[in-house]
Amino acid sequence: MKNILVIGAGRSSHVLIEFLLANAEQFRWLVTVADAEPSAAARRINGHKHGLSVWLDVNKPNDRKDLIKRSDLVISLLPAQLHLKVAKDCLLLRKHLLTASYLSPDIESMHDVVQGSGLTFISELGVDPGIDHMSAMRLIEQIKGQGGDIFDFRSYTGGLVAPDSDDNPWHYKITWNPQNVVMAGQGTAQYLDQNKPRFVPGYRVFEHPRIVEVHGFGELEMYPNRDSLLYQTVYGLDNVTNMIRGTLRYPGFCSAWNALVKIGLTESFGMIHNTGGLTYRRLLEGFLPVGNGPLKSRLAQYLGVAVDNEIIHKIEWLGLLSSTSVDLSNGTAAEILLELLLRKWKMTGKDRDVVIMQHEIYYRKNHSDHLKVSTLIYEGESLKKTAMAKLVGWPLGVAAKLLMTGQLDYPGIHRPTNRRVYEPVLDGLQQLGVNFIESDGSEG
Amino acid sequence: MKNILVIGAGRSSHVLIEFLLANAEQFRWLVTVADAEPSAAARRINGHKHGLSVWLDVNKPNDRKDLIKRSDLVISLLPAQLHLKVAKDCLLLRKHLLTASYLSPDIESMHDVVQGSGLTFISELGVDPGIDHMSAMRLIEQIKGQGGDIFDFRSYTGGLVAPDSDDNPWHYKITWNPQNVVMAGQGTAQYLDQNKPRFVPGYRVFEHPRIVEVHGFGELEMYPNRDSLLYQTVYGLDNVTNMIRGTLRYPGFCSAWNALVKIGLTESFGMIHNTGGLTYRRLLEGFLPVGNGPLKSRLAQYLGVAVDNEIIHKIEWLGLLSSTSVDLSNGTAAEILLELLLRKWKMTGKDRDVVIMQHEIYYRKNHSDHLKVSTLIYEGESLKKTAMAKLVGWPLGVAAKLLMTGQLDYPGIHRPTNRRVYEPVLDGLQQLGVNFIESDGSEG
Repeated sequence: MKNILVIGAGRSSHVLIEFLLANAEQFRWLVTVADAEPSAAARRINGHKHGLSVWLDVNKPNDRKDLIKRSDLVISLLPAQLHLKVAKDCLLLRKHLLTASYLSPDIESMHDVVQGSGLTFISELGVDPGIDHMSAMRLIEQIKGQGGDIFDFRSYTGGLVAPDSDDNPWHYKITWNPQNVVMAGQGTAQYLDQNKPRFVPGYRVFEHPRIVEVHGFGELEMYPNRDSLLYQTVYGLDNVTNMIRGTLRYPGFCSAWNALVKIGLTESFGMIHNTGGLTYRRLLEGFLPVGNGPLKSRLAQYLGVAVDNEIIHKIEWLGLLSSTSVDLSNGTAAEILLELLLRKWKMTGKDRDVVIMQHEIYYRKNHSDHLKVSTLIYEGESLKKTAMAKLVGWPLGVAAKLLMTGQLDYPGIHRPTNRRVYEPVLDGLQQLGVNFIESDGSEG
Repeated sequence: MKNILVIGAGRSSHVLIEFLLANAEQFRWLVTVADAEPSAAARRINGHKHGLSVWLDVNKPNDRKDLIKRSDLVISLLPAQLHLKVAKDCLLLRKHLLTASYLSPDIESMHDVVQGSGLTFISELGVDPGIDHMSAMRLIEQIKGQGGDIFDFRSYTGGLVAPDSDDNPWHYKITWNPQNVVMAGQGTAQYLDQNKPRFVPGYRVFEHPRIVEVHGFGELEMYPNRDSLLYQTVYGLDNVTNMIRGTLRYPGFCSAWNALVKIGLTESFGMIHNTGGLTYRRLLEGFLPVGNGPLKSRLAQYLGVAVDNEIIHKIEWLGLLSSTSVDLSNGTAAEILLELLLRKWKMTGKDRDVVIMQHEIYYRKNHSDHLKVSTLIYEGESLKKTAMAKLVGWPLGVAAKLLMTGQLDYPGIHRPTNRRVYEPVLDGLQQLGVNFIESDGSEG
């Protein structure tokens, strides 16, 4: 009997726990789900005979250690800043650890001693970060193995509403962490272009989206991520002259979101006072230069577009020109906007999501240039079984299964960028129906 | 014998501790200075027979309580987020508390029980926040007391380099917390204009500075603060139609700083990777649109100014067009810029600072409109005895003296906006040479 401890029973735990419980009988696992909210943990277990739900305040070291001590593997779904405590306990108590969060330098610095203890800690085992790393690395190492010399790497990921459920003028609904929606494009984006670093300040990130042709899906827009260059060395791409990682949106999204940025509605610093008495109309007006005439004309003029432009239509559709009261008593501009978006961009009824990922790798081989494209188009099943939830939960689940069945032995602290991790995890994902389609192309 | 405990021996403690020690003999005080750095505390006391320096890790509750228990008054100069712990201890152990930091809602919520215990806690007893509140409130209540009906309130504060020491093209040096320099203008600024709230996103805060004529000093530029409306109710100005609080700079500063914002160099999110290998020139180039021609011309073109414009000269003077390596191995754009500014805008040698404050209050009385202006121009003495250090330290020192000599009895949690505080503290400041000059004007 092996004990798997999942810490955190929030939204991202659903698919993972279902996967673990479905395998529990065959592999003789006990799956323990711990959360500060005991009813949330119980709901995840739902009476399963191989499951156990427990209450845990993760800030109480003794309770935390007691639970970890009794497990063979810990999967932490806690907010990123709490992982370090759990990682230290796992090292002390000699347990393996998996997370879907970004690997922090604090945790990374424990590599040698974790390796020496024969323990395997893997972070970034979700999607962006996670599946993006694994599928990119498989492709990169395949090209290199065949003698290709990579000079241009482009990788895009987007969590979107599925085409069938796309019924609002923004062509966007919130399919995952809502915070990410307003935080997107806050901070300097960077990428490598013709061997020179390019920096884009947050307030200009949505100004010039690139058009990306996603094979089997169609044209999408892409804006650059903050972290494009973070993985250059990790991916073994120190010699490329171009590297970009970006986020995908349906066409028309970026110019309209850019208008919200330009107005000032995405800013997450500075409390707006007395918002209780504010209407959306008055909020919008307060951001525009003083002027006369109808608000809609002033808005169009400020944005430099015609009053019947699609951007104005999108902003009006959100309700920002309405005399409705702002539904938040005090908040930053971004918080006020988010509260509105949570209502307007809500997934409801039969809505489904889709996760799109595409890698485009240009390489030189036999004195000519080639292009390899690898594309994932993965649609969700329902409001609960979203593509995003599966693509975050399954890599953790598959890696857990590999670890618990002795098929993954890779002591140390890792991202899933090594073949020993990405091969078996991608194979496991393929068995679950997560397939990348590869296509070749010769550059003109 | 009364015991006064000062927690924190950093830069802002210098003038305060000197003031307390200078009064210690006469009033029979023991002044204890506690800091995590014992040598810093010892330096402040410098062997004074009424002083005691102690080591304190403020996160150790027992050590903290031990010290607080033995004092009659606590003055906390800790970072703002640590005040709550100290405030709770002071309540528990029945001690008065003074700070120069912003009053947090957490602490404010303790008002009733602090008042019931007969204790006096006063926050915002420095300068901006502090002297600005006190001098504004004195003027507001004076005008109201004489039957004036205030409809427009403007208040400006600036910490600048003194005119004699103003020898760089930016007409600016760092006279206080360097962090504030790059954080200025991050977040939505807001003010009230013709009874309508006006919002300015951070990236546009420096775009349209107002010109302010400071009586006895000359023309300065003013950009709006984030918190203009935070004090509307506190100041009793709920019925005004215009209210703005702003920051003062020498003419020409705002348009040049706005250029840095527009380039993207002030952004405090998003690590710039491999900055170790970057030159300032390449950093700047990375932010500009791709193009040909000399970097300086491309910069001028991006900013929409001539290549010999004063803004380009200022940017060049900072070294941003030079091939010097960025002196920081990893950092956000704002951190890279700050590291540069700390060297270029350093106060050295005989440099002195000046603090400028001006309130402009428009009111109606006897059917006509009037203007009352109150101005403080306070120059520093030296690099160590800056105007800023005095104007932060003295209000705390004067309030401490009032409390310890029984001249200030005002139980509860307060800002210094009540006459019971501002009258005696402003009087004490006047005795130290801090004088506001008032002038009248009739609006045309």
